[in-house]
This record gives sequence, C-alpha cells and structure tokens, in this order.
Amino acid sequence: MHYGGDYNPEQWPEETWHEDVRLMQQAGVTMVSLGIFAWSRIQPAEGVFDFAWLDTVIDLLHEGGIAVDLATATASPPPWATTAYPQMLPQDENGATYWPGSRQQFAPASPEYRRLAAELVTALANRYAKHPAVVMWHVNNEYGCHLNYDYSDNAAVAFRAWLAGKYTTIDALNSAWGTDFWSQRYTDFGQIVPPRKAPYSRNPAGELDFKRYTSDTLLSLYLMEKNIIRGAGATQPVTTNFMGAFPPADYWRWAQEMDVITDDCYPDPNDPESFRIAAFARDLMRSLKPDTPWLLMEQATNALNWRPTNAPKSPGQMAALSMQSIARGADGILFFQWRQSRAGSEKFHSAMYPHAGTRTRTWREVVQLGAELAALPQLAVGSRDARVALVFDWENWWAISNPDHPVVLDYLELVQRWYASIHRQHIQVDFVMPESDLSGYTVVVAPHLYLLTEAGAANLIAFAAAGGDLLVTAFSDVVDENDAFRPGGYLTQLGPSLGIWLEDFGALVAPAGTSNTGSSAGENGVPVAIAATLGQVYAPLDGPTGTITGTLLAEEIHLEGAELLGSFSGGRLDEQPAFTVNAVGAGRAYYLATIPDAAGCETVTSYVFEVAGVEPVYAGLPATVEAARRGDTVVLINHGGSAVEIDAIDLDPFAYRFITDDVEA
Amino acid sequence: MHYGGDYNPEQWPEETWHEDVRLMQQAGVTMVSLGIFAWSRIQPAEGVFDFAWLDTVIDLLHEGGIAVDLATATASPPPWATTAYPQMLPQDENGATYWPGSRQQFAPASPEYRRLAAELVTALANRYAKHPAVVMWHVNNEYGCHLNYDYSDNAAVAFRAWLAGKYTTIDALNSAWGTDFWSQRYTDFGQIVPPRKAPYSRNPAGELDFKRYTSDTLLSLYLMEKNIIRGAGATQPVTTNFMGAFPPADYWRWAQEMDVITDDCYPDPNDPESFRIAAFARDLMRSLKPDTPWLLMEQATNALNWRPTNAPKSPGQMAALSMQSIARGADGILFFQWRQSRAGSEKFHSAMYPHAGTRTRTWREVVQLGAELAALPQLAVGSRDARVALVFDWENWWAISNPDHPVVLDYLELVQRWYASIHRQHIQVDFVMPESDLSGYTVVVAPHLYLLTEAGAANLIAFAAAGGDLLVTAFSDVVDENDAFRPGGYLTQLGPSLGIWLEDFGALVAPAGTSNTGSSAGENGVPVAIAATLGQVYAPLDGPTGTITGTLLAEEIHLEGAELLGSFSGGRLDEQPAFTVNAVGAGRAYYLATIPDAAGCETVTSYVFEVAGVEPVYAGLPATVEAARRGDTVVLINHGGSAVEIDAIDLDPFAYRFITDDVEA
Amino acid sequence: MHYGGDYNPEQWPEETWHEDVRLMQQAGVTMVSLGIFAWSRIQPAEGVFDFAWLDTVIDLLHEGGIAVDLATATASPPPWATTAYPQMLPQDENGATYWPGSRQQFAPASPEYRRLAAELVTALANRYAKHPAVVMWHVNNEYGCHLNYDYSDNAAVAFRAWLAGKYTTIDALNSAWGTDFWSQRYTDFGQIVPPRKAPYSRNPAGELDFKRYTSDTLLSLYLMEKNIIRGAGATQPVTTNFMGAFPPADYWRWAQEMDVITDDCYPDPNDPESFRIAAFARDLMRSLKPDTPWLLMEQATNALNWRPTNAPKSPGQMAALSMQSIARGADGILFFQWRQSRAGSEKFHSAMYPHAGTRTRTWREVVQLGAELAALPQLAVGSRDARVALVFDWENWWAISNPDHPVVLDYLELVQRWYASIHRQHIQVDFVMPESDLSGYTVVVAPHLYLLTEAGAANLIAFAAAGGDLLVTAFSDVVDENDAFRPGGYLTQLGPSLGIWLEDFGALVAPAGTSNTGSSAGENGVPVAIAATLGQVYAPLDGPTGTITGTLLAEEIHLEGAELLGSFSGGRLDEQPAFTVNAVGAGRAYYLATIPDAAGCETVTSYVFEVAGVEPVYAGLPATVEAARRGDTVVLINHGGSAVEIDAIDLDPFAYRFITDDVEA
Repeated sequence: MHYGGDYNPEQWPEETWHEDVRLMQQAGVTMVSLGIFAWSRIQPAEGVFDFAWLDTVIDLLHEGGIAVDLATATASPPPWATTAYPQMLPQDENGATYWPGSRQQFAPASPEYRRLAAELVTALANRYAKHPAVVMWHVNNEYGCHLNYDYSDNAAVAFRAWLAGKYTTIDALNSAWGTDFWSQRYTDFGQIVPPRKAPYSRNPAGELDFKRYTSDTLLSLYLMEKNIIRGAGATQPVTTNFMGAFPPADYWRWAQEMDVITDDCYPDPNDPESFRIAAFARDLMRSLKPDTPWLLMEQATNALNWRPTNAPKSPGQMAALSMQSIARGADGILFFQWRQSRAGSEKFHSAMYPHAGTRTRTWREVVQLGAELAALPQLAVGSRDARVALVFDWENWWAISNPDHPVVLDYLELVQRWYASIHRQHIQVDFVMPESDLSGYTVVVAPHLYLLTEAGAANLIAFAAAGGDLLVTAFSDVVDENDAFRPGGYLTQLGPSLGIWLEDFGALVAPAGTSNTGSSAGENGVPVAIAATLGQVYAPLDGPTGTITGTLLAEEIHLEGAELLGSFSGGRLDEQPAFTVNAVGAGRAYYLATIPDAAGCETVTSYVFEVAGVEPVYAGLPATVEAARRGDTVVLINHGGSAVEIDAIDLDPFAYRFITDDVEA
Repeated sequence: MHYGGDYNPEQWPEETWHEDVRLMQQAGVTMVSLGIFAWSRIQPAEGVFDFAWLDTVIDLLHEGGIAVDLATATASPPPWATTAYPQMLPQDENGATYWPGSRQQFAPASPEYRRLAAELVTALANRYAKHPAVVMWHVNNEYGCHLNYDYSDNAAVAFRAWLAGKYTTIDALNSAWGTDFWSQRYTDFGQIVPPRKAPYSRNPAGELDFKRYTSDTLLSLYLMEKNIIRGAGATQPVTTNFMGAFPPADYWRWAQEMDVITDDCYPDPNDPESFRIAAFARDLMRSLKPDTPWLLMEQATNALNWRPTNAPKSPGQMAALSMQSIARGADGILFFQWRQSRAGSEKFHSAMYPHAGTRTRTWREVVQLGAELAALPQLAVGSRDARVALVFDWENWWAISNPDHPVVLDYLELVQRWYASIHRQHIQVDFVMPESDLSGYTVVVAPHLYLLTEAGAANLIAFAAAGGDLLVTAFSDVVDENDAFRPGGYLTQLGPSLGIWLEDFGALVAPAGTSNTGSSAGENGVPVAIAATLGQVYAPLDGPTGTITGTLLAEEIHLEGAELLGSFSGGRLDEQPAFTVNAVGAGRAYYLATIPDAAGCETVTSYVFEVAGVEPVYAGLPATVEAARRGDTVVLINHGGSAVEIDAIDLDPFAYRFITDDVEA
Repeated sequence: MHYGGDYNPEQWPEETWHEDVRLMQQAGVTMVSLGIFAWSRIQPAEGVFDFAWLDTVIDLLHEGGIAVDLATATASPPPWATTAYPQMLPQDENGATYWPGSRQQFAPASPEYRRLAAELVTALANRYAKHPAVVMWHVNNEYGCHLNYDYSDNAAVAFRAWLAGKYTTIDALNSAWGTDFWSQRYTDFGQIVPPRKAPYSRNPAGELDFKRYTSDTLLSLYLMEKNIIRGAGATQPVTTNFMGAFPPADYWRWAQEMDVITDDCYPDPNDPESFRIAAFARDLMRSLKPDTPWLLMEQATNALNWRPTNAPKSPGQMAALSMQSIARGADGILFFQWRQSRAGSEKFHSAMYPHAGTRTRTWREVVQLGAELAALPQLAVGSRDARVALVFDWENWWAISNPDHPVVLDYLELVQRWYASIHRQHIQVDFVMPESDLSGYTVVVAPHLYLLTEAGAANLIAFAAAGGDLLVTAFSDVVDENDAFRPGGYLTQLGPSLGIWLEDFGALVAPAGTSNTGSSAGENGVPVAIAATLGQVYAPLDGPTGTITGTLLAEEIHLEGAELLGSFSGGRLDEQPAFTVNAVGAGRAYYLATIPDAAGCETVTSYVFEVAGVEPVYAGLPATVEAARRGDTVVLINHGGSAVEIDAIDLDPFAYRFITDDVEA
C-alpha cells in the first residue's frame, strides 16, 4: 500500500529537503512522485543537464526509506525550448497560439517537442534506470489536460499521416466520411485540415477521426517515452496518470500500455453526491485493467484552487474518499502534493504538509491516514467480478458529442446518472466496452450506445442469448463507426433481438439547468432565440413498478414481438410503447425508449435487478452509506453528515469500517 | 404547382437513382433541385469536368417526368480549390480564418472564387441550357448563410472599391461618415478597413455601408452567374433561394433581379406561435415581387437537426404549413431534401423519403400532400392587394442594429410583433418599403423607422395627406441614410405632420427574457454590472380603448397641434402624452411614443383599424385559426391543438379548408 | 470654479463656432477642453500641420471669455498613421489586432506611436504654450480606456525591458516569480512574453508585474507629453483625466505626476444607489492629491449611449451629482460634451447643448447650474481631514484579481460595499494606501488586504499602537508583493497584533447574482458543471450588536490573545470565532473572519465607530440624504425620490443645501 504525493523539491532550498524527509517519515509516506515539472531545472539549456540536485534528493529520499516514482518531466517544456522552437507551440481552432507562461505548451505532434522530450527522457532513464530508490516511472503528466486538442500545422501534418495510415486511399476516406455531402470530396490527403473554425458544422466523421487521432497521438508520446525507459534497461513499472473519464483519451486503449493504472480525482466537497462520481472513477480505473492494482495518484488533502468556490473538505472526508479508493481496488493513496507551494498558480491547493504547518487539521489527518494505511491487512487485487456491468465507451462518447443531433446529450453525465442510480442501490458494478467479455455477468446495462459496432452489437446479443439480461436505452444503435446511419433504418442490429423497430427519436426540450442543453447559431447563421419554456420537456411513462419520468427523447417505437412493460402517459406519444422486454435465447433484452431522470434510472434498474435476482453488496443501508466489495472484504463508508447505525455498527460522518467474511476488521 | 425537393444523387449509388425516380412518382413529385452541393463531383480538379453522371441523372428524371431546377453548385467549393487558393478563404472580424470542412468557405469578394465559380457555371450552362428537363436555374444556395460577413483582405480591397464608387472623393465619405468624431478622418480610400475588431465602438455610418456593401457584393455574385446562364442561351427562370427576413441581404433590392422568388423556411414545431412567423415570411415573399408566383424552396417534412431540440412536427402540421404558403401566394412546395442522407451534418434532418423508409408517417404525409396539391384548382397569382401595409426596411434594420442607442432594439422581433398582432386579428397585410407605392392602402403601419430617407418620409406623409391612416411609433425619423441626426432635432420630417415634437427617448430597462436586451463593455472597458432589476421596465399608458403596456422606450413628446389619444400612467412620464393623432390632409397620422408588448400592439392596431374601417379576412375566428386570402379564395387553417367548428366547418388540428366565393372548395 | 465641457469644433462648420461661444456665455461656461480628438484635423499627414482652424477657435473662445483646457489630441491616431505604421496597432491576448475605425488604436509601447505623438505635442506646445486663452493642458484622454492591456510584440519588447530594469538579473526574476513551479524558469529576459493565451493559469507574479508594467507604461506616455509641454515653456497646470477606480492605472502613483486631478464619472440613473458609488469616486479623487483642487472633467447632462439601457437623469439629478462633487472637493464641473454630436458612436450621449436645442429641460438645467456655480462662495480646498480612513490599494486589487484563489473576489465591489456602509451612516471618509500617513485618523478600515507589504503592515500596526482603531477583515496579509505566501503561514505580519492565527480560508459559494462569482475550465480542461446551489452560501455570525451575514469566506481562526466579539452560528464553523479585537499599544485591532453583506458591513463599522466615538457629519439624516463636509461647509443633498424635512430644512428630490457654521448658506 503506497502512501505519498507529488514532490517538487526544486521549489525549495536544500535545507527544506531534509525537513521534508523527516516529516514524510512522520506522516508514514512510502513513495513520492518526483520531478514532474522539473524540466527547466534538469535541463537549463539544450544539451546541458544538471542532475546533481536530483541525485541529492533521490539519495536523501532513499536514505529516508521513501521510494521514488520518478517523473520524466516532459509535461512542461522550459522557456528556452519554446523560444528556440516556437513552431512547437499548439494552436486553438481559431489559429490562436497557446503561449508559454503556464504549462503544457507543446503541440503533441511537434517533431521538435518529440525530439527534445526524447533527449530528456534518455538522459533521465540512463541515469536512474537502476537506482534502487526508483520503483516506478511517471511518464509526463495528465496527457491532454488543459489542451485537449491541438489544431496547429503540426496537427495538420500528423492528422493527414494518421488518416493515410488508416484509409490508405483517399477514396476510402471519402466513402467513410460521406464527403459527397456538401461537396467535401478530397482528391489528396494533403487537402485535409484539422477541424478548425469553419462557417458551419464540420464533417462528423472527420470530427470523430480527429478525436481518435488525438487519443492515438497522445498515447504515442507515452509509448515513445516508455520505450526509451525500457531501452535504458529500466524494469520498474511505467505509467502515466489518468484523469477519470477524460474525453480526449480512450483509456480502454491506453490501459493496455500501462503497467499500472494511476488516476487523479478531485470530487467537489460542496456536492454531497460527489462521492458517487468519485466511486464511478474508482470502478472505472479498476475495470480498465482488472486484476492489476491501481493507484490513486492525485487527490487533495483539503481545498483546491481551480473551482469558483474551493470549499474545504469536512473532517474525515479525505480519509473516507481514500478508503473508497482502496475499497474499489486502489493499492496506493497519493496526493498533489507533498508540500504546499509558496508561489505559483496552485499555492492555494492544499497539500499533505500545509503552508500553515503541523498545527493544522490537515496535517493531523494526513498523519492519521498514513498510520491507518500501514495497518491495513493485505487485500485481494481489484478485478472485474461484479454481477452487473455498465457499458462505457469513448468512441460512442465522441460520436454522441457531435452536433446536429435530435437533442444535445451529455453522455458522461448520463452514464454517471445510470451509475449513481445503481450505486444508490449498493450494487457492485464493473465497467465494460460493448466488445468486452460479458460472460460473467447477470445484467448488462448499456445506455445510449448511439455508435455501435457490428462486433459490439453481436457481443451484446450473444450475452443475452446466453442467458443474460440486457438493458438497451434510447438513442442506441443509430450509427456505424463512421457516424453514418446503417442502411435500413435505426436499431438495425439490436432491433430484432429487442423485438421492436424505431420510427422517430422524438426530441424533447432539455429540463432547465441540466448539462444536456445547448445553443445554436441557427441554420442561416442568425442566432436562434431559444424559447426554452416552449415544447414538451417531460415524457412520463407508466412502468411495471410505477411512473418514470422520461426526458430528452421520447422515441416512437413499434412492437415486433416484444412484450410491453410500460407506455408513455400524456404528451406527444400518449399511450404509445415506452418500455419493452423481449426473450432472446436464454436471456432477456429490455428497451427503454427515453432517458429517465435520476429517480427513473433507479426505478428501471431496480426492476431489472429484481427480475434477474441481483443483490446489493450489503443490505439495508441508507443512501449515503456506501458499500463496496474487494475480494472478501466489504467496506462501509458513511458519506453523509449524520451518524448512522447499521447492524450494531456505529458510523459517524465520514467514518468507515472494513468487514471481512462477516467479521469486522 | 411544383412539388419536390433538393435532390443529391451524388450521395447514392446509381441503383438508388432508379428507386428514387420510382418513389418520386409515387409521391407526386414534379420537380427537384439538382446538384446544389455537387461541385466536387462535377469538377474533380481545376479544368476537369465530369458530367457523365449528371447527364444520367437528368435523363433519368426527365424520362420519369420529373422536371429539374438545376443548381449551379457554387455554394461549396471543393477542397482542391481552397487548397490551391487559400487566399479565397474568408475571415472573421478577429482575423480568424474560416477553414474548409463544412460549406460556404469562400470570401464573396475573392477574385479566385469568382473565377472558379464562373468557370463552373459556364460549363454547366453551356451543357444544359437547352436540356428539356431543366425548367429553372438555382444559383448558388442561401447566399450569406452561416457566413454573414467577411472581413478578410478580399473584403478590404472590395469594400474600398465599393466606397470609391459610391462617394467618388474621400472628403465625401468623411462628410457622410462624420469622421471628425474621434479623429477618424481619412485621406485615402486605401486607409479604410472593414469593421474589424477595434478597441471600442466603430463608426456607425461605416458599419452601415459595410452592410450595404455586403448585400451588394453577394448580389453581384448572383448576377455574375445569372449573366453567364443567359449568355449560354438559357431561357428558363433564374433564382436563388432566400431565407425569410435574412439580415445580410436586402431582399427588396435583390427581388428585382429574381425571375421567381424562392424561400427557405423552418418554423420551430415547439413554438405554438411559429406559424405566425411563418406567415410573416410568406407575406414578405409575396410582397417582394407581387404578381409573380413564389416557391417555398425548402422546408422540412418533420424534424430538423440544428436546433438544441429538434422536435417532430405534429401529424398534419407539415401539410398545414404548406397550405399556408399556398394561401399566401406560393405556387410550389419543395423540401430539403428528397432522400434523407446517411452521413454528414444533416443526416438527422428529415426528408421526403425518410431513412426509416416507407412505413413511416412522414412518407405517408408526403404522398398525401402530393396528391392534394395535384388536385388543387388554379389560384390567382399572389399580389399586393391587402388594405393594410406594414413597413419593413433592411436599411433601417441595419441602422437600428448599430450599438450606442438609448436601448437595444431587435427590429425584426418588433416588426414580427406588430405583424403577429395584426395576424391574430385575421387581417391581411402586405409588406412595403417606406418608398413604395402606398396608394392602394387604407392603413400603413410604419413601426420604428429610425433611419428614414427624405423620399420615404415624403411618401408616408403623402399617403396620409391623400386620405390614408398612418401609424408611426417610437424611435422613428431619427437619422438620415448616413445614420446621422438631421439638423434641428428629432422627428424633423414627420413631426409637423404628426403634430408633435420629441424631446427625449426615455430608455426603459428591457423586460427580462426578451431579445431586446444587451450587454456592454462599459465606457472605460470594464464590464458593466447590469442590475437588470433596477430602473423602470414598463410604461403603462391609458389609450382610447384601455391600458397598453409600453416597453423599452417612453418618449417625452410635446403636442404641437396633435390630438391626445392616451397618456402615460405612472412611471417617469406620468400623465405625459403617449398616443396622439393629427389630421394630415384627408388622412390621419398617429404617433405612439413607446413600444407596446404583444397585447398592446393588438390594442393599438385594432383601434386604428376600427377607425379606418378595415375588416378581417374572415370574421369570428379563434386566434389559432388562420385566414388568408389569395384572389377570391380564402384558406382557413387550424394551427391549434384542438378541433374547432367555424360556420359549420369542422377543422381538426392542422386541418385546412379552401373557400371560394363563400362556397367551400 | 470652472464650468464647461469637452468642445469638438472640428465636427461643426465655422458658423457654428460663433453660435457656440454665444450659447456658452448664456450657460455660464468658463472653460472648455479643446481638441481631444482633433489629431486627424491638426495633422492631415505626417509632417503636415494645420493650425489655422484651431487658432481661429482658440481666439474666438478667448474673445468670448472662455478659457481653454488644451488637449494634446494624442488619444486617437489618424488613419494615415496606422496605415503607414501598422505595427503600432495593439493586440489582444489571442493575438487578434485591434484595428482602426474606433479610437485608442495604439499600442502604448509602440516606438512609432511615441514618435508621432511626440511630434504632435511638440508642435502644439510650441504654438500655444504662451497663448493667454490656454489655462490648462489636457494630455491624451482616459489612458488605458477600452484597451486595458496590450499583448502585441510592442508590449513583449517593452515588458522585457521593464522587467530587466526592475530585476537586473533573470535569477532575481525567477526567484520573485517562483518559476520553479511548472518548469517556468527563464534563462534570458528575451524568453518572456506578455501573459498571452496559454493552456492554463499563468504565473500570478508575472500577471501582477504585467499590470504594474502597464500602469507604468501608460504613465510614461503622460510624462513624455508633460515634459514636451514644459520643454516648450508652458507653465499652466498639466493633467490627464482619470476614470474613478480604474483597474489598469495605479492612480496613487499617477497622482504624484498630475498638477491637478481630473475625473470622469458616469453613475447609472437607473441605480438608486449609484450616488454612493459616485461619492466613492469623489472621495477617492480628493484623497489622491489632498490639498489640491480636483475637477469633475466629464459627466453627462442627461442620458448616455453605452449602457444597455441609457435612462435619462431625473429633473435636478445632474445638479445634485454636481454639487456632490463640489461638496467632496471639486473646483470645477465639466461635461462630455459641449454640443451633442450629429454623427458617430456617441451621438446619443447627452451634452450641455442638446441636439433638440434650447427648448429642452437639459438646456434649462445647464443654464441654471452655471448660474448657481457662479454664485457659490469660496470653499476650502479639499483635504484628507476625515476621522475615518478606508484603505484602497491598486497593487492589492491586481493581486486579488488573479485566478486560483479560494473564491472569486471582486475587490472593487467589496471596498465600495464597505464605503457605502459608512456613507449610509453619514460619516466622512478619506482614502489611503496601507503605507500612507495615518496619524490623523481615529479609525482605519482596511478590508481584504490580500497583498500586504512589510511597510504597509508595519504602518497599520503602528497606527493601532499609537491609539488608533484598526479593522482588518478576511483574506488579508496572505501574500507578499510577488503574490507569494510569506513563510510560516498566513497573517504572519498582522496576526500577532490581532491576537489570532489563521488555519483555513473556508471558501463559501457566492450568493447568486453577485459579481463575486466565476467560472472555471476545470483542472483537466473540461468545463466544470457549477452546481451553484450546492454548498454553504452564508455564514451567519453573532456579533456584539446582532447577527451579521457573512459571505464568500468563513475563515477558521484561532485566538492567541484576542478577545472574542462574535462567533459563527450554524454552518461549517458553528460556534467558532468570527469577530475579534485585540489591544495593540494604545489602540485596538479588530479582525472579522468573513466578508459581510451590505447590512453586515454597516453593523460592523457602526460598532467600531461607536466604540471609537466617531460621529456623523450631520446627525439624524435619512439614508438617501447625503451629507459631506468641505472645510467648514456641510452640504446636504437629497438623492431620494421623495421630499424630506431635516431640522426645518425642506429638501425636494435632488435638492441640496450648503450649510456653513450651522448657518444655512
């Protein structure tokens, strides 16, 4: 069980390093991530390296019994680099340059950046590959963060090469992108530009490929560094830190290249439900690479600096969220950062050792958590062993985020809504892709799979045919991997198994204040006056266990063999089918023709779980008490503001309890 | 009576073309608009044309009895063109380029674009000028759409030339623009730039001229193409499709160059009042070129793709809106598009032949409408024969849209508000310019003519003097054609006829949630904190038939001979004059010193109509039933959600009835 | 007592000039600011000057008895200048150019602009230095207005030079800026760019220095012109017009270079409390250079043109706000502008002579005010002689405006809130810097001094030690002049005197609709969904005289000797200390651990004043009646909408009364 945080000794004089090691020992720190933003100190000029200070720090840590997760320091190029090679600076879709003065100021596809980064990593790897303090390699930092997409000429050149590699011929690209629409037919790859500012909507298949290209290009930077590290003879695990459900990087694909998954997670203390979104991230990390431990690489001990309001954590809340991570598979708890900075953009970001020193609650909680973690028994490795799987797919996310749909959908928010509804029932969930092995599951919840490949559709159907219960929901199986309709209508793949066909999507007006809203420049370029109060907002439906409130879409479906479980009541589709089930081989396939609100998601899934016989991790818990199983250990955590008693276990606010084989740990 | 839609066969394999013709025949299609976005297929490289496929399609259509409205295909240049000539790309006011990847990526003033477009049109016109299938020419598409204004160096060069043509000498321009304000005096036309980003408000006369230049420049593209078509010996009517009240193009000026007016119109099914705004567009099209039929060139059969919520049309609603067009002068009903696309930005845009095929309601309604249109009797040509005229003027629109006014006014919304108030009274309205022949009218409603030319003012006064009733409203006769105050105050031209003088505009705070709001950077560049709840919002006035709610402006006027019809009650101008009438020759001139809300517009106009003896098209109708007269035919349409009975005529929701000479058709 | 306005005769024919002088005499005008935007008329081409018309105007004014405040006309370069030297145009942080067509289109650091401006001022000064009509020099106009910050290459070059001048070595800069954070270490001044668009938050110390650089650079333009004027032998006072609390210019520093302070002030007539914000500006101007008269250089006679709603002033309101200025130290009342323009961006801006002429209320009020001012007795010069000082500091403003703080704070709004709370108590206030001489004050209110220098802290402590009462509030003494935490925690300088230490800032959610809100791109570049209703908004505290509502911050403080005056009641810090007092030498130091709402500010300050024995200027006044003392004259002004009676003095709305030595004037 690792415990520690980012360590940036370059911000402090050498005398502080000695104090740091002493305080780390006091706090029970076992490992630090070192030098993430130290490029400008390690390499003060091209061709010039200064390792002396780093040698000293690493040796000090090693002597103090602190292991090192050594960063490759490539996340923030030094000023001399961007001054010498301004063409390595990225640009936004309007052609505006991202200048230095912050961090991450490099175009991922820039040859100059790649060369300089490779030189730095080569020097670092050669020097420290065999150092006994180094137990892990931390490649770059939060790839894609802040600068999700680069549209510079670097990107144009690289995107064209990526497309040529994918399609081989320009006619294959024309066919995939449907470029006969709006006279977009290319005759040479050299004519293609990234999806920069254009007069109106850009080609959706091009948008989708640009997101794939971006994810691949960022990953190629990681692989370049990893290969250099391995080439230097390093044998420690190599990783880069993820950021939960992060849009620009398809972590399903990335996870294959990680030796260990690490995640940064910053739930908002002001949101009493943020622990569920944190649980979502934990389960996603565990699922990305099951049977391999993952690490919580960054969290905050207390307040942050980048929200409009950076509220403090409540007493105990930091430990509760740490234990949540462990309960969901983490084998390490680390923070940004060890010692709070005195200067710079993140000086108000809390740290293990706060600026106000050891007399603070933060420090006391850090010391206490270190002690508790050290006392934890060995836990089973996190695996994908739940009875319920929830489908989450980056490709679908990218496609569903394109404009010009019946209604604006925030896929992440919707999947999190489904997740939270299951979490409130204390039922354990794994995340899967549509194409994942589903053989171990009782129920698969597959919400809103707008883009669904042939393999994915076949896999879902096979799961049901083999006896599983599959829940499919509105706006599914609409397009292929090129964001094009399949011939013959909608639900062309799943429809026969669902026993329905779909005539119309029936867009509704988004409820006020939700993230599923949008704006539009209007068809003729004149801003559309959005009369948000006009039009149908809610589509209630009478389901098998009560009324469910549908939103955003009320699809017009027709039964072709399915059994009717519920119909719309009121509104445009009054008395039309809304919720169906169909026998598929040994299993069942449900279809819900709308997007329920939070309560509706719980009503629908609880019905499906009841029919399937899926049980909670722990019975009889209030909603704010979380239960998670790791191997044969169940962890109960009270995220609520009031004390509760469960089976004679008292849980104060933010208290937790490890239970193994029905025996309290 | 034409029936059909845009046809884009280049998106489909040849076998589909045969199916298309068969299905078109089934739907009663008589004409399609062909090849609007086919440039990249017709001309795969500079100097290389491929007409074989187009020949085949046109011949297939011709054999199938479907006429062709042949597009010139110049709306979306192919990627090879913008790659070879990047200087033809337009730019926004910040200097950001509009890149390819969408459509409309050309600077209207670009010499390269003009040359390439001319070469394409020449080739097309030479080939198809005499083809018997071609019955109309569709030049470009929705000129100015998405890219209302171009600020690139192309525009700079052309704007200077346009200004030199208009003003001859730079001193004439200085005088017209008032450049002694803020030291803006030019000494050479070459010093002028388009109204690009500037530190603060730009010269309003320059803004106005830039809008005139833009309208003229877009029109010159149309004329270039039209001249090429005529030069090739084509004799069919030539048109380009309008977009209702579209800001960048002065359609009064453009209409003179059209052989037939065509319009694209997409009312929002979520807005129960959108049929009135649609009626506004129909009457505008009829009025732009009276005594010539116009065509509804684009509408949707069902849902769109570009609003935040793209709700489906109700059953029958598409036919009701089609019949509204016919009732108001249209001689053809066409759609975007014939066959729903499988790919691209508009694949969710409904079509005559939906992606879900013939088993859909959309297809059934398309077939039914085709049959009904084929059965319609010959109708009189739409003309300007109403008793009431409503003034709508692009020049005033442009001027009123300049910043730095007492309050922000949305001229289009205000004219539509006046129109809707008259529409609710079932009174027929023509649109006119201030300078139009008004001799046939009983009442002229001339709202908010901030910019009023000498000719316009004289014409309005002459109309009243000849016995007409003229209604003038707040913020009228303020500036000349250079957006400059006339010497001597305000209402300098109309004041004597109105019998009043105006001291102050009396800006009010805009009611929340309206489009007549704005924001401001503040005089010193610091954002102004807008305390929207502070200040007077409403200015009630006691009128001759009850209380009217004034908004936005409560002008301080003084009577100089006028008779008082109503005074403000409460607020800043309590008991001051608000509504007046003055005898002018044989007629009357009303002045309303505020901008009423929707109910107030109806109260004011109904009073004026009552005094003038103007009658509705059909008496006793509920508000949601529309009545329109075309020659001696009256069409009744129920746009409401409930069935109604009128003089023993049952009208279900979205049902309609043609009545001629009091005999049902 | 000066009376007049900006005069722009270049906008009018010569015959109007004669009429102007005649009307000015009628209105009692004594001085006009001449030629502020006349550069393009004075210098029609490089090297060519035309002074003939200006000679004529100045002579006409002189003959008419009107003195001239002669402008240097450098605020808006002519089109020929920016055409010849496009590199002098400024750019925004995205690299977009600010083009001509408005005003202020010059980069302050541009060598070309500086050369051209110097040539113009040299010619003007040589010609008019000895002209008897010229009584004052008006340098440029509203420096920094509209274009607060320039990020062009001009700025890059000048910023580097400014930094090299300040820091001498790049290592000193690295240390001050904390560039070891995020690998920002520079090895050469040439690597530094202005704070242009970057992927994420920029270095806060760099931001702070860029604001200092900007203020200094604008001031250096003023000094360049002033030196030229003096070099030409001119002896009249030289000034440039301020804009109240204007962010980009540290007027404390600027005031030292002004011979007379002049201010432009435009309170919103729609805001019934705007007279208090106007009073804030008056007191600031008086305090910037005490014992020297200041002039109200610009205000409006009636409506403006740049707010979304430009409401008229009420009858008498213009005079009331003029008398407020005089009561708070002004020795002149001037307007923008003398004669309302017929054309251009400000034609709707009211003027002394309105476009609607002499039959207007505006004209009548202008004439009346001129007469009243001429009849005023000699008044004492405005000085810093109040018993209460309020600290307002530009350096702190700049630092507090950096992002990445616990919560977004609008420092100006907060200081104005404190000011207004004192103004409502009719207590006279001077403004001071933390480092000012405080020896004359009884109470110093020092709100939210996030950035506090060693000298400032020592000065505040010395004030209390000498017997003063010091009020310190939340978010004070947090960083040094480089926006870096001081070693050892927070409140490291003031804490011992306050008798407390601070553990945590305790950010609260901003109340809806306030300016203290913000948004965030989120740590990973994905927009943060702000659930504004989640989290604690208010922190009530039980104070010595009742409950006070705290907002934005509820700090966790610990007593180390202080006496407890109030505790939080409810919320996160229930029953924790919130309001304390500590004996410091002969005085007291209060600390308030939150930011009260408006009522709370009044509760807190009234308690402090009561304890200190501070009395109002005039007892028993209603809140809307203002009282201000100038020497031995007290002015009472009724800013409310109803008449009031005070000690037998009747005050109609917007009426005022001068009282000297308890005898009515």
